[in-house]
Amino acid sequence: MKKFFALLVGVLALGLTVQAQDAGVPASTNIPGQKYPQILPDNRVVFRVKAPDAQKVQMDLGRKYDMVKDTSGFWTVTTDPIVEGFHYYSLIIDGVPLCDPSSQTFYGMGRMASGIDIPDKDMDYYQAKKVPHGQVRSVSYYSDMTKAWRRANVYTPPGYDENPKKRYPVLYLQHGSGEDETGWPTQGKMNFILDNLIAEGKATPMIVVMERGYATDPTKPVSTTASGPASMNSNVFPDVLVKEVIPMIDKSFRTLADRDNRAMAGLSMGGFQTFQTTMTNLDKFAYIGGFSGAGRLQPGADIKQLYDGAWADADAFNKKVKVVYVSIGTKEPERMYAGVKGFHEALDKAGIKHVYYESPGTSHEWQTWRRSLRQYAGLIFKK
Amino acid sequence: MKKFFALLVGVLALGLTVQAQDAGVPASTNIPGQKYPQILPDNRVVFRVKAPDAQKVQMDLGRKYDMVKDTSGFWTVTTDPIVEGFHYYSLIIDGVPLCDPSSQTFYGMGRMASGIDIPDKDMDYYQAKKVPHGQVRSVSYYSDMTKAWRRANVYTPPGYDENPKKRYPVLYLQHGSGEDETGWPTQGKMNFILDNLIAEGKATPMIVVMERGYATDPTKPVSTTASGPASMNSNVFPDVLVKEVIPMIDKSFRTLADRDNRAMAGLSMGGFQTFQTTMTNLDKFAYIGGFSGAGRLQPGADIKQLYDGAWADADAFNKKVKVVYVSIGTKEPERMYAGVKGFHEALDKAGIKHVYYESPGTSHEWQTWRRSLRQYAGLIFKK
Repeated sequence: MKKFFALLVGVLALGLTVQAQDAGVPASTNIPGQKYPQILPDNRVVFRVKAPDAQKVQMDLGRKYDMVKDTSGFWTVTTDPIVEGFHYYSLIIDGVPLCDPSSQTFYGMGRMASGIDIPDKDMDYYQAKKVPHGQVRSVSYYSDMTKAWRRANVYTPPGYDENPKKRYPVLYLQHGSGEDETGWPTQGKMNFILDNLIAEGKATPMIVVMERGYATDPTKPVSTTASGPASMNSNVFPDVLVKEVIPMIDKSFRTLADRDNRAMAGLSMGGFQTFQTTMTNLDKFAYIGGFSGAGRLQPGADIKQLYDGAWADADAFNKKVKVVYVSIGTKEPERMYAGVKGFHEALDKAGIKHVYYESPGTSHEWQTWRRSLRQYAGLIFKK
Repeated sequence: MKKFFALLVGVLALGLTVQAQDAGVPASTNIPGQKYPQILPDNRVVFRVKAPDAQKVQMDLGRKYDMVKDTSGFWTVTTDPIVEGFHYYSLIIDGVPLCDPSSQTFYGMGRMASGIDIPDKDMDYYQAKKVPHGQVRSVSYYSDMTKAWRRANVYTPPGYDENPKKRYPVLYLQHGSGEDETGWPTQGKMNFILDNLIAEGKATPMIVVMERGYATDPTKPVSTTASGPASMNSNVFPDVLVKEVIPMIDKSFRTLADRDNRAMAGLSMGGFQTFQTTMTNLDKFAYIGGFSGAGRLQPGADIKQLYDGAWADADAFNKKVKVVYVSIGTKEPERMYAGVKGFHEALDKAGIKHVYYESPGTSHEWQTWRRSLRQYAGLIFKK
């Protein structure tokens, strides 16, 4: 009888497992044809990997989950519900953080990483829809300042090729630390966000330039990490952007090449770089956006002293700069949340007009930045 | 004294190891900033990964190498000399084939894979040079036949935007099995090959369309593997290319939309697909290229029976089709080499004019295909 109950429990457990796994749908970020990772209706995720000889396998989604091996050598785990949006993750096999062979890879964390995109209730705005589509173009150019070939990704809006006399405003849009110029068109889905906004008449058709936010002058001391925040200080990226990228873009594309038609925005490190670049080049930019990253305000520092006193005369600044946009996710790490919110409050106190947005329930991740781009792109280049 | 010699040998061995490792250069396919894999002057490669808790680590480059752990938890191996060109590889950690965290990733083998590019003596033709550059554009479109959003990569030649009245011939260029539409612009370096050929006046400026060679009609039985050769038979890709992609490209780009200005080529599976598509649509294509893959000729079959007898009248075919190009690497697996060579001989015997090329010393890999593209692109669209 004991045996029967044990068997029954076993069968029921097996039944539940099978049911749970069958109830899910493969993530959109999987390699085509791969059934796992699988997203359950309540946003728990089933991860699975074959590793018969491994001693220990974990899933690292910020929080680490231990995976359990079955008799056929598959390791599986069902996570807690995961917040909507895009998350980098690693498989940890016997201590080594690695890509999940079932996942597409994304440049993040300073290396190629696995990612999972949990559908959002409010995801319509970043889906491919039957509206006119822009193109994302990969552009190679030689940079004299860094003595290297560089690549920019450039979004051209729907109609760009069909209207060969029309000129467009330009948004320079930067990724975060450990990411690169592929972040916005891949993880960020920026092309679909813009296509949809433009189709609805909510954004002015614009060119969007996405550059690699790392640039080293070979005549200056070299930082050993090419991708981390440590390299930010030795990074000549702002100079490369202003002196090389902007002229190259204005030459290669039909841009409206004046400050009233030039915006910049970036996420995290890219937000810092945006303030660093625009605030010292206010003759070149009229729109400034920082998503989960903005100006660097040390505790106790006076915002009116920053950037050579550009914020000392609030009226003059408010007249000159058309949009300042600052955003943060409510679930971001406290230090980041407090930093950006404090910056927003300092701007307020100094009388600097700006739009401040808190993305509900999202962390230091792409869902915060997709939402921010959707808003920011709708605010800039309005007559 | 014995101890002294042992110590001396140890020091010398250490010295040699350090010297060997320092003498190399990081592969161009590494994540920026990563020192390993490192290519030595004689094309041996040093691979290195930190995995203190792993039981067994191997490097799989077609041939498997056992890696050896040092006291700080790094596993290292120095391979034999590797042939020039691009090779997919895996780290095998406790039995699981995985991406090397130090490598960029490439869609190949039906999943994201690590890759290493060994410089070729004759590599100049696929390097970025100070010549006018084309763009590689990512184009999203909805496919009614497959009821899915698809993505094509489209190369536009230098001058495309500057000459808004000019129209261009189009090459449809396909990847191999387990790869996708990113293969040619990433692994294949097709944009630099074309840029350089066009700059030298050796190729006619052309548009190149790279599509995803898998397409499933949802109303037909579905193959379970989306990427393998097994799916080739249930694949409606040739139909999607002819009925959906070509009209979409002719609408979205300034093409010369007639058969004399339309070519197709592909590698391996893409070569088979090229013959499958063009030979049954000779009213649409005037140029046919198969790199390490061509028509399917069963042993003992009569080539004149293939494709509804399109090769039965050699004179008529030779007048109609301007270029047939067939190539293979001399170091490809015997079955592939014999298959393509046999096909070339059957074409000869049937009186079908064609260009046949054997790439010296290269296998079923991208170096064969880069060389083939360089030749083929110089043969097509000549007046």
